[in-house]
Amino acid sequence: MINEKMIKLGSSRSVIRELFEYGKILKEKIGEDKVFDFTLGNPSVPCPDEVNKYASKVILEDSSVHAYTSAQGDLAVRKAIVKYNKDKYGYSLNENLIYMTCGAAAAIKIAFSSIISSDTDEILAVAPFFPEYRVFAETSGAKFNYVKCDEENFLVDFDAFEKAITNNTRGVIINSPNNPSGSVYDEKTIIKISEILDKKQKEYGEPIYLIADEPYREILFDGELCPFIPKYYKNTIICYSYSKALSLPGERIGYLAVSPEADNKENLYFAVMGAGRALGYVCAPSLFQKVLIEHADKTSEIAPYKDNRDILINALEKLNFTCVNPKGAFYLFVKSPIEDAVEFSNIAKTYGLLLVPSDSFGVKGYVRIATCVSKETAVNSIPYFTRLAKDLKMI
Amino acid sequence: MINEKMIKLGSSRSVIRELFEYGKILKEKIGEDKVFDFTLGNPSVPCPDEVNKYASKVILEDSSVHAYTSAQGDLAVRKAIVKYNKDKYGYSLNENLIYMTCGAAAAIKIAFSSIISSDTDEILAVAPFFPEYRVFAETSGAKFNYVKCDEENFLVDFDAFEKAITNNTRGVIINSPNNPSGSVYDEKTIIKISEILDKKQKEYGEPIYLIADEPYREILFDGELCPFIPKYYKNTIICYSYSKALSLPGERIGYLAVSPEADNKENLYFAVMGAGRALGYVCAPSLFQKVLIEHADKTSEIAPYKDNRDILINALEKLNFTCVNPKGAFYLFVKSPIEDAVEFSNIAKTYGLLLVPSDSFGVKGYVRIATCVSKETAVNSIPYFTRLAKDLKMI
Repeated sequence: MINEKMIKLGSSRSVIRELFEYGKILKEKIGEDKVFDFTLGNPSVPCPDEVNKYASKVILEDSSVHAYTSAQGDLAVRKAIVKYNKDKYGYSLNENLIYMTCGAAAAIKIAFSSIISSDTDEILAVAPFFPEYRVFAETSGAKFNYVKCDEENFLVDFDAFEKAITNNTRGVIINSPNNPSGSVYDEKTIIKISEILDKKQKEYGEPIYLIADEPYREILFDGELCPFIPKYYKNTIICYSYSKALSLPGERIGYLAVSPEADNKENLYFAVMGAGRALGYVCAPSLFQKVLIEHADKTSEIAPYKDNRDILINALEKLNFTCVNPKGAFYLFVKSPIEDAVEFSNIAKTYGLLLVPSDSFGVKGYVRIATCVSKETAVNSIPYFTRLAKDLKMI
Repeated sequence: MINEKMIKLGSSRSVIRELFEYGKILKEKIGEDKVFDFTLGNPSVPCPDEVNKYASKVILEDSSVHAYTSAQGDLAVRKAIVKYNKDKYGYSLNENLIYMTCGAAAAIKIAFSSIISSDTDEILAVAPFFPEYRVFAETSGAKFNYVKCDEENFLVDFDAFEKAITNNTRGVIINSPNNPSGSVYDEKTIIKISEILDKKQKEYGEPIYLIADEPYREILFDGELCPFIPKYYKNTIICYSYSKALSLPGERIGYLAVSPEADNKENLYFAVMGAGRALGYVCAPSLFQKVLIEHADKTSEIAPYKDNRDILINALEKLNFTCVNPKGAFYLFVKSPIEDAVEFSNIAKTYGLLLVPSDSFGVKGYVRIATCVSKETAVNSIPYFTRLAKDLKMI
């Protein structure tokens, strides 16, 4: 009488993890220097020294550092988050509508649990999407659906998007800067999404919440800036994490923010608190809440991700690979030179190149290369990509 | 279309929190020294210096301290937990059946989610019980049921217990040392529980999992030692937390351990991993996993809790209050001198004494006094208890 769905979820590893584990074995077999593991989104740039020093000091000096905080999170950190977003994006969130979470995964799960009430409810994602969205939606009792993107620029195919929204759509989840494509939704895209959602929620007479999964919001190249979504669409729920931009993935710290202009914002926030409670989240880790009171405005160094991106794009394009040029995040999305990306990933494996096929992200025919690796890994992989390209007669 | 159940859970504070918030306002009004807040189970004894120093050092010296760990948790910390329990209780858990969690609340929620499959499934608790059990069970889709305890000693009323187990009972949750009564289940009690569960699972042909919620296992007085439950009952799931014994409540660190002798242990552990994934727990906070590799065998000082217990019991018994003598944890369970404990709690409030009525713990007619306060608070409260007792004509 063990829950069968949970057994299945726990025994089936994600494709990414599968490949990562394979890499560990391969390294033992053929040597660490011959395996190029581009699988995981584990930041290669460390958390800034000043942040670590501060955390280290807080532990020794603040006698209440390990105490429970309120379920919503320490008021001071929620205020620091409001200040940071106001200074950077010119928009005021409300500290009483911010809920500190154990990272973005918890925030997304809590958001879904708050807006899903029946098994006809639907969550809609835009491909390519993080595969766990499906898990979070389905285990919250909803149907999960997604629309293909526009493969020209990896933004939104608006016609398909509009058609996919039904009167059961309770939430739409988007992820920009995007994992895996690195695309960044520009202002035009956000405005168009907002217009469609506004039209649809008027048509159906129910709010459609836009869940903005934004762990990469601060990892941008070439002067890009993400539009701040609550400015454009009132029914926005931000799911943020310090995993990527502050290189704290293991510490599980992030937040959920209900837009101060959202419909039923008080009830929505109550539901967020209720979902957090029901899911067993008592509070977000207290030390890193304390740390963020002083450091919510910091990021790790972004330049190394840009350097790796440039090293790999330059090399791969010379080998006649087609790459989506990422404007943010730390992935490179590369067109598979053969139709089946899974087959291509399997071939690449034999060269020690671990590339994640795109199928589980809802797009066929690509592989994802995580560029959050050492520069050495990026540079040293090039001769292996070259041999692969030669053998596939690409050059 | 916001989830109504979640709105309700998020907008209704627990009685404990309600009283705590009242206390904060009262302190502002009549002065901090005139309010005796006995509401929260927030450890008053700090985390040991050596643990804080180590955490502080790890942050500065271990460049991978903030990286994702595997979903189960770092192998080294799981091994340290096996070693500690083996050394202390002479029983070997299995590191491959341990799953690091964000505290005991997360562990319990994950355990329930793993063993509940249908809305006829039931979780049984023994009163007095932590009120959130009901929330975790019901939001996992199960019915929640409980049996009264034997009020002689606050252990188990075995007849009532046996009768309450049905062929829908998937899990039984117990909590020893007990919050709120401070009772500790002795070996005889554990053996009798095991016998009844064994008989019942044979009768119904399905495993009944015993969920041992044990955050207070190391907080014991007068030479008590908790029996290690997997020794007595094979289908045990331990839910442990470092919140209380190591004074790290805000850091959200604990574990779930499936007994190495449990029925279907592999599938149960897969379901635990699946539930953790579905609920949005990516991994337990990495810093404190690292810290516990070296410090899983430490506890905070226990003596101050014993001192407070003795100060308060001595004083209250002189005032003709009847106290359950707690053998562990940091609460004092006191019989209400008037029938309705909620009314008594309201009267006590007017004396600045914040005592939690027992009703939400599934027992009527008692109040809980958290003894995890400063010695000063314990001592200074006595004149106020004296006035209360006089006015109630108890002395």
